[in-house]
Amino acid sequence: MIFRYYLPTRLFFGWDALKREGGYLKSLGSRLLVVMGPRSARECGLWDDLQNLGRRYGIEWIIYDRVRANPDLAAVKEGLEVAKEEKVEGVLGAGGGSPLDVAKAIALLANNSVPPENLYEGDFPNPPLPLGAIPTTAGTGSEVTPYAVFSLHHLKTKRGFAHEGCFPRVAWVDPRYTLTLSRELTIDTALDALSHAVEGYLSRRASPYSDILAREALRLWGKRREQLLEGDYTPEFRQDLLWASTLAGMVIAHTRTTVLHTLGHYLTYHKGTPHGRANGYFLAAYLEFVRPAVEARVGEILAALRLRDLLELRDFIRELLPPPPMVEQGEREKWARMALTHTHALELTARLPQYRDLLNILESSLS
Amino acid sequence: MIFRYYLPTRLFFGWDALKREGGYLKSLGSRLLVVMGPRSARECGLWDDLQNLGRRYGIEWIIYDRVRANPDLAAVKEGLEVAKEEKVEGVLGAGGGSPLDVAKAIALLANNSVPPENLYEGDFPNPPLPLGAIPTTAGTGSEVTPYAVFSLHHLKTKRGFAHEGCFPRVAWVDPRYTLTLSRELTIDTALDALSHAVEGYLSRRASPYSDILAREALRLWGKRREQLLEGDYTPEFRQDLLWASTLAGMVIAHTRTTVLHTLGHYLTYHKGTPHGRANGYFLAAYLEFVRPAVEARVGEILAALRLRDLLELRDFIRELLPPPPMVEQGEREKWARMALTHTHALELTARLPQYRDLLNILESSLS
Repeated sequence: MIFRYYLPTRLFFGWDALKREGGYLKSLGSRLLVVMGPRSARECGLWDDLQNLGRRYGIEWIIYDRVRANPDLAAVKEGLEVAKEEKVEGVLGAGGGSPLDVAKAIALLANNSVPPENLYEGDFPNPPLPLGAIPTTAGTGSEVTPYAVFSLHHLKTKRGFAHEGCFPRVAWVDPRYTLTLSRELTIDTALDALSHAVEGYLSRRASPYSDILAREALRLWGKRREQLLEGDYTPEFRQDLLWASTLAGMVIAHTRTTVLHTLGHYLTYHKGTPHGRANGYFLAAYLEFVRPAVEARVGEILAALRLRDLLELRDFIRELLPPPPMVEQGEREKWARMALTHTHALELTARLPQYRDLLNILESSLS
Repeated sequence: MIFRYYLPTRLFFGWDALKREGGYLKSLGSRLLVVMGPRSARECGLWDDLQNLGRRYGIEWIIYDRVRANPDLAAVKEGLEVAKEEKVEGVLGAGGGSPLDVAKAIALLANNSVPPENLYEGDFPNPPLPLGAIPTTAGTGSEVTPYAVFSLHHLKTKRGFAHEGCFPRVAWVDPRYTLTLSRELTIDTALDALSHAVEGYLSRRASPYSDILAREALRLWGKRREQLLEGDYTPEFRQDLLWASTLAGMVIAHTRTTVLHTLGHYLTYHKGTPHGRANGYFLAAYLEFVRPAVEARVGEILAALRLRDLLELRDFIRELLPPPPMVEQGEREKWARMALTHTHALELTARLPQYRDLLNILESSLS
């Protein structure tokens, strides 16, 4: 057995990380496309900081700020056109997972003659444009992964895209930009980070390296679990959750995700359930299913989360989240069948699920 | 407070890492300088493997195999001349810390018009030649750091050189190549890894990231401590110690080393004491000195090493090593004065030592 480690992103983590190390923006170029959502990067103060740093370091910002949650390839296409028209030298993703992922695809496609609709099948002889990332949620981990996830309408779900060149060259990870997140968004994104740590720790590609990081992410999450429920979001809470999220991103950069994410994507695509929340609904049943194959590790996860058993996890998540959306039996069956075709995620899952297992997870989680 | 993470090396760790992932040798070029010592890379089977892989992947090897322990800049100069004459496309360091460090300097200087004797003062506008590393000892960690250490005769000591470009692009870390290490070399190099983990964990530049790795390195070292003394070197022992060494290298890649290394370098330069062993002699007294500033962390280190107290650590190291070399009082005083000028290492030390403190460490360790 050998394992790999590869994480070329230069990371600055902590309070005022961007303001203190804004000079590294210049390493992306002096004419940069900033990819944002319509609001979050502005509301949390990040856009103001970028404008100030742009003046200080002579960086011209070209704005593409129309990225919505669960972006599709049309968003990539639109942003790519801006990047090409404006001849930008680099791309900065600033926001939640969606702007970060769109920024990755734009940077890659801007340097390769592959149309956005062929992103998943394309050959990419050239490296992407220099790429930076600044997360404003504590969940995605995208700032330290080579992945981007898009809604694919022909498949009627979201699916992850991976390309080594899509590791951001630089990531500034500052808890300040997460201070103003609503309780709802804090919880939803925290569950995304949690599912990364859990899935990575139980992945068949887990390694001695990813394990160290996963354990620390789980420990931090466990330390802040009660506070997450109570809504008592201190700066220390923000910092720990953001670091847990970045660590969990480093984990899946090495392990990828598993069938929990596959199921979550259906709920997000078809019912509009926020990504992390969708994973949260399935988490307890997923752990119940894989437990026979990874009993000791599931025990370690529960201990790190300061939970007695899976029942307590299920109760905790029920208390944390609104009730799941209605999903009819026929639709659940369809999703279980679809998930069976997602062989890559199945193979990395600690226990190989059959149709019946997938349906069980869906049924017990959504009722 | 912010912290940085940056470790762009692509790492393959485990049994047959090189044989399985030898294709990545091609990413360094097809005409490569391999930097080795006169014996170790041959005796452990690494050179055979490289020749086979060279045939398979069409790589031509140019050999520079005259690197001795504690290399000076003359070795760099000699290897550099071979690299230039032979117009190599990349450089591979294969062996203990010395060949790895020489390979780094050669790769950097081959692409920049700085003479070897000006390595420490040079400007390096160009990145080094593509650089790979294959360690054959479990101690240096050089395969995942941007550092190289050389004997500097005008300073009468060894001193570390750092350049971000000197992170190896690829590192193959295979415990197989450490299977044949003698007991003496195993112990000496293991103490190097230990001092990296300890110094990194107590460094003023320690970060939440380096801490995770340092704790794991210390845990693995502690798990194998008794076995190290007993000489019972199983494959599992080799694997754990090598992984601890690589982790500890990742730690100092972020924290650098501290005054313990400074003192160790004097003993190595002036008395020929192997590097790791030299650090080992000073370890207990160093911990005794810094303890008032980092009481809890010193306790964690002892717990990870499965030791009751510093006295037990001192006894353990006395049992592990031959008696230290004779160093006369006047020489100790000179070293203590010299160490005071090494401000960078002093500043990173958890407690700032005065002349008297340094002399105390030297006296209590060398008697």
